[in-house]
Amino acid sequence: MIKPVWLDGDKVIFVDQLRLPVEESLVECRDYQSVATAIKTMVVRGAPAIGISAAYGLYLASKEAAELSKDHDDFRRFMDEAADHLAKSRPTAVNLFWAIKRMLAKYEEVASQDFATIVSVLQKEALDIAAEDEKMNYSIGEFGHDLILPGSGVLTHCNAGALATGGYGTALGVIRAAYEKNKDIHVFVDETRPFLQGARLTAWELKQDNIPFTLITDNMAGYFMKQGRIQAVVVGADRIAANGDVANKIGTYSVAILAKEHGIPFYVAAPVSTLDLSIASGDEIVIEERDAAEVTSWAGIPTAPEGTQAAHPAFDVTPNRYITAIVTDRGVIHPPYQTGLQRIVKEDA
Amino acid sequence: MIKPVWLDGDKVIFVDQLRLPVEESLVECRDYQSVATAIKTMVVRGAPAIGISAAYGLYLASKEAAELSKDHDDFRRFMDEAADHLAKSRPTAVNLFWAIKRMLAKYEEVASQDFATIVSVLQKEALDIAAEDEKMNYSIGEFGHDLILPGSGVLTHCNAGALATGGYGTALGVIRAAYEKNKDIHVFVDETRPFLQGARLTAWELKQDNIPFTLITDNMAGYFMKQGRIQAVVVGADRIAANGDVANKIGTYSVAILAKEHGIPFYVAAPVSTLDLSIASGDEIVIEERDAAEVTSWAGIPTAPEGTQAAHPAFDVTPNRYITAIVTDRGVIHPPYQTGLQRIVKEDA
Repeated sequence: MIKPVWLDGDKVIFVDQLRLPVEESLVECRDYQSVATAIKTMVVRGAPAIGISAAYGLYLASKEAAELSKDHDDFRRFMDEAADHLAKSRPTAVNLFWAIKRMLAKYEEVASQDFATIVSVLQKEALDIAAEDEKMNYSIGEFGHDLILPGSGVLTHCNAGALATGGYGTALGVIRAAYEKNKDIHVFVDETRPFLQGARLTAWELKQDNIPFTLITDNMAGYFMKQGRIQAVVVGADRIAANGDVANKIGTYSVAILAKEHGIPFYVAAPVSTLDLSIASGDEIVIEERDAAEVTSWAGIPTAPEGTQAAHPAFDVTPNRYITAIVTDRGVIHPPYQTGLQRIVKEDA
Repeated sequence: MIKPVWLDGDKVIFVDQLRLPVEESLVECRDYQSVATAIKTMVVRGAPAIGISAAYGLYLASKEAAELSKDHDDFRRFMDEAADHLAKSRPTAVNLFWAIKRMLAKYEEVASQDFATIVSVLQKEALDIAAEDEKMNYSIGEFGHDLILPGSGVLTHCNAGALATGGYGTALGVIRAAYEKNKDIHVFVDETRPFLQGARLTAWELKQDNIPFTLITDNMAGYFMKQGRIQAVVVGADRIAANGDVANKIGTYSVAILAKEHGIPFYVAAPVSTLDLSIASGDEIVIEERDAAEVTSWAGIPTAPEGTQAAHPAFDVTPNRYITAIVTDRGVIHPPYQTGLQRIVKEDA
């Protein structure tokens, strides 16, 4: 079973996603700062996996706080600093903030107890977050696989797979579930420039699971849609606004337009924790601008002339009107999203 | 002045476009076989530049035929073989076949004359083809620059520049002409996977000419259109059917759909020699399938797991309904293309 991150005693272990698929190596972190660095440098990526990583990071922070704090005030200062530091590692993933908030809320519940208790409660909370995420993805797969008809070509963008989550995946959860139901599907994998999460990670996952796929460059999606080779698109989400606008990896918006033009359904698969009903629409989502060097070079080799100015928005926002349905761990939401998303979040209460 | 290929005595010299922008090196060819190899391996690419290269190749063939032939039958056999060999180097570029046909027609005119005369006439014909192409591009620029409004963001895909032609460029001819008219434009350059002609070649050309530009990955085009940063798209063409359907670098079709969705005009710039009125529509255009290894690795480094199946259609066809206008060296053609293209070709007679 593929996992991007797990706890091994007092270490957080990451599959180094920067080295896949050429090398399958691990990164060990013993403090929250190195967990934040792993998030920032994209050793780990994918909104749910980032949330889980931050939760583990706060558990490591609590261990360190327990060792270094003179009193409960010290402990709290330490936890606040760690939460701030981790929150700054990536700006777009709502799960990051969600996981930090949940860990801090749990901390509040036990903040006056002895240090060992706090540490043990936070460890359990982080492990719960990871386990719940994996379970949610199985639910997403269970709700979503009916949307994929037998014999379909299914396009996915970026990696919303096991490596992006607590396991199994969101978009790849739907695809895995459809495949497991003998739906005889074929996956088209957008390579997803500039970071090539599709080529490096999604292709790697599908290969591990023997699910048939074809890797394509991002600019081939329209061609294969026109050829009638693609019957559905399934992508993940980094953040979903109250009106159903979806922030996801750069290029998702273009794929959604291509799908609409070809009359192909466009599905978003994400756990309820990805919903951010505090923002009315995608217009409020701040898009992370990453280093342009990630566009002008690859594996250290320049792809463009020296000094080339490049842009690197890491995400884009797909307006709700392009989205056929949103598959969550609590069911499939159809338009209008405003009401459907509100309803599903309230079920939480 | 940037040129992709020229004649230096009895050698054909290519700028090695595989090594740009990291290295500015030349490839020398002394026989038609190595010219065909240069075309096939994409040392030279771009429909007009391929045509010019093939013409030079046939000139080299005539020199070799003159040395080795016992009689005029021998000479003819040699020329036919060379033409066949060169015609097989790339399947999609109509200019390749057009240039070969024109060289063979010129050869027919003088086939019974002495060998030295044949060689000299074919040399002149090849040089004429190159010079005419460059001149056509200045005409394309002259007709096309009015389509670009002052202050525009202009998106281009692949390289339809000086390096793809006899000089100046088709799509980049329009962009250069607009820039020269002080139109204060900013170019968005699609990097154009998998071969990165945009990042490697278009960025290099624009840098040489100090035209302001931003390099983006192909999947960012929709994002920048939505941001209101792009007011026009200009691309080249490898082949244009009688109804105005356009074969061009893979990804062009997707850009055309994105432009339509955002209400942005989509222009195709190409000389009349790119028109192929013998085919009724783009459906008849055979799309070259290139080596999938060009998708699964870059600069020799794998981007995907070993054994990954990938697709590599090198071109796609953009249906005429997405095209706002076709800019030729004889004027701008607006829909309906059927009549407009017929008329402009007849002016030839």
